[in-house]
Amino acid sequence: MKNDAKIGFVGLGIMGRPMAAHLLEAGFSVIVNDINPEPIKELVSKGASEARSPKEVAAASDHVITMLPDSPDVQAVALGDNGLIEGVRPGMIYADMSTIAPTAAVEVAQRLGAKGVRCLDAPVSGGQVGAQEATLSIMVGGEQAVFDDFMPVLAKLGKTVTLCGPSGAGQTVKACNQIQVAMNFVGMAEALVLGAKAGVDPAIIVKVLSGGYAQTRVMDVRGPRVVKGDFEPGFRGRFHYKDLNIIMKTALDYGVPLPATAVVHELFTAMLAKNRGDLDHSGIITVIEDMAGVQARTKNG
Amino acid sequence: MKNDAKIGFVGLGIMGRPMAAHLLEAGFSVIVNDINPEPIKELVSKGASEARSPKEVAAASDHVITMLPDSPDVQAVALGDNGLIEGVRPGMIYADMSTIAPTAAVEVAQRLGAKGVRCLDAPVSGGQVGAQEATLSIMVGGEQAVFDDFMPVLAKLGKTVTLCGPSGAGQTVKACNQIQVAMNFVGMAEALVLGAKAGVDPAIIVKVLSGGYAQTRVMDVRGPRVVKGDFEPGFRGRFHYKDLNIIMKTALDYGVPLPATAVVHELFTAMLAKNRGDLDHSGIITVIEDMAGVQARTKNG
Repeated sequence: MKNDAKIGFVGLGIMGRPMAAHLLEAGFSVIVNDINPEPIKELVSKGASEARSPKEVAAASDHVITMLPDSPDVQAVALGDNGLIEGVRPGMIYADMSTIAPTAAVEVAQRLGAKGVRCLDAPVSGGQVGAQEATLSIMVGGEQAVFDDFMPVLAKLGKTVTLCGPSGAGQTVKACNQIQVAMNFVGMAEALVLGAKAGVDPAIIVKVLSGGYAQTRVMDVRGPRVVKGDFEPGFRGRFHYKDLNIIMKTALDYGVPLPATAVVHELFTAMLAKNRGDLDHSGIITVIEDMAGVQARTKNG
Repeated sequence: MKNDAKIGFVGLGIMGRPMAAHLLEAGFSVIVNDINPEPIKELVSKGASEARSPKEVAAASDHVITMLPDSPDVQAVALGDNGLIEGVRPGMIYADMSTIAPTAAVEVAQRLGAKGVRCLDAPVSGGQVGAQEATLSIMVGGEQAVFDDFMPVLAKLGKTVTLCGPSGAGQTVKACNQIQVAMNFVGMAEALVLGAKAGVDPAIIVKVLSGGYAQTRVMDVRGPRVVKGDFEPGFRGRFHYKDLNIIMKTALDYGVPLPATAVVHELFTAMLAKNRGDLDHSGIITVIEDMAGVQARTKNG
């Protein structure tokens, strides 16, 4: 791929906006589209050009990236009226970096693949900070040759880029990641609430557990903040809820019972029902706290 | 405390046996008792003396340690006929290092406290290897002065010794630890089984998740073995099941709902029902695998 290849970019939210900017900084020509005019203006001021629909983005670009909220958005942008599918040409690469259902990713790849488009699903973890600092972890599904050909672009967006398997595998591994992260948070929440109601300082629980076999990265990063009641996002609860909906849909698609994750999903449903979806996902502890009638807050600092 | 103080030790199982041996090596006089004659013989051959009941242990010792399977065992040894309570003297320290219900620990401490005994609950994590290598993490509940006075003994058994709060707090933090560890294992299990059924190599899932926000120490240690079907214990599933029973009892005692831990408890009930309690606790994945009709095994090594 040439360093000045034309990269289409649809979806300029808190993730897509800094990602598209990194591609501009790296010397790519970037053609942008979004339903919101404001980030388009910003990126055009940095040298991007605007296209008026996903179809026009595809027609004007060598390759296309999408970074959208959920499966229906990707299906509409890729396959809908004035969608990418109406503007694509054989041989171009399409990488969807949104987090969507693996089965939706496979469907999109098959439909565009029938037009000769070489598709990757390439969801990320690392959140807003990872997007801003180009330190995302990128989980890729697709063919090795397409992965290799698109690496010059992905390498400008993330620190760790892993080919996880065929089409859909990137989304599957992202779903696995979000299961584990959610379970780690709920484990911390139930442990701290039980401990607090039994009269132990939650800060001591975090300290002891972090030093042993119970250690998790989410406890290292968020435990000391949780016990102070600091739920500044990070990654918002409503985004993790969305991911849990994808996970439960995926479990349904593949016929896999997920008994503990299903309960975790319900707890996030409660977090949203309590209008706490804009807290960091560590704020799931407040749901357990409400149920138990106690807050897991340290009195020391 | 003098370096040659007489330490009573009741409970010489896979944990207590090497712990008592460490105290002998450190120069303490050790008076042992167990329902099994075999480890008594071994420890007597190393210089310990035998007492024929917990009562006799208490009468012959300056301080006493117990290391027993569960709450009823500790209650019987400490408070029952021919129990410690019949042989104790004011001022001696009693440290129960078993993992039992926090409320049971508080009850024992109150009953022996009424006789002037200075009690600590001091459960451990680190398992058989930690006991053998004297690298246990010890979580202590009790008074600061008693903790300080008993440190010369505890320091010979563990690497990290933490005063967690008043009587019962050590057991509470141990319960919290076992919640988090169990949730981390079940999170890994559900993630790997979903991923495997969706066609992704579980070894790749472990690699990607370990490198990011989903990282847990149990995945670092056990993930690469789980995907090879290696469930050699470690810490046996039936011991974690016992701890989960304590946790659910504790949740009942303190009035704390633990929705996700309750499901995890049921999954360990299934692990025991399938006669897999002697697998490492990471073997909980086999319960999810059976439910999903798939095994999460790598094909690459």
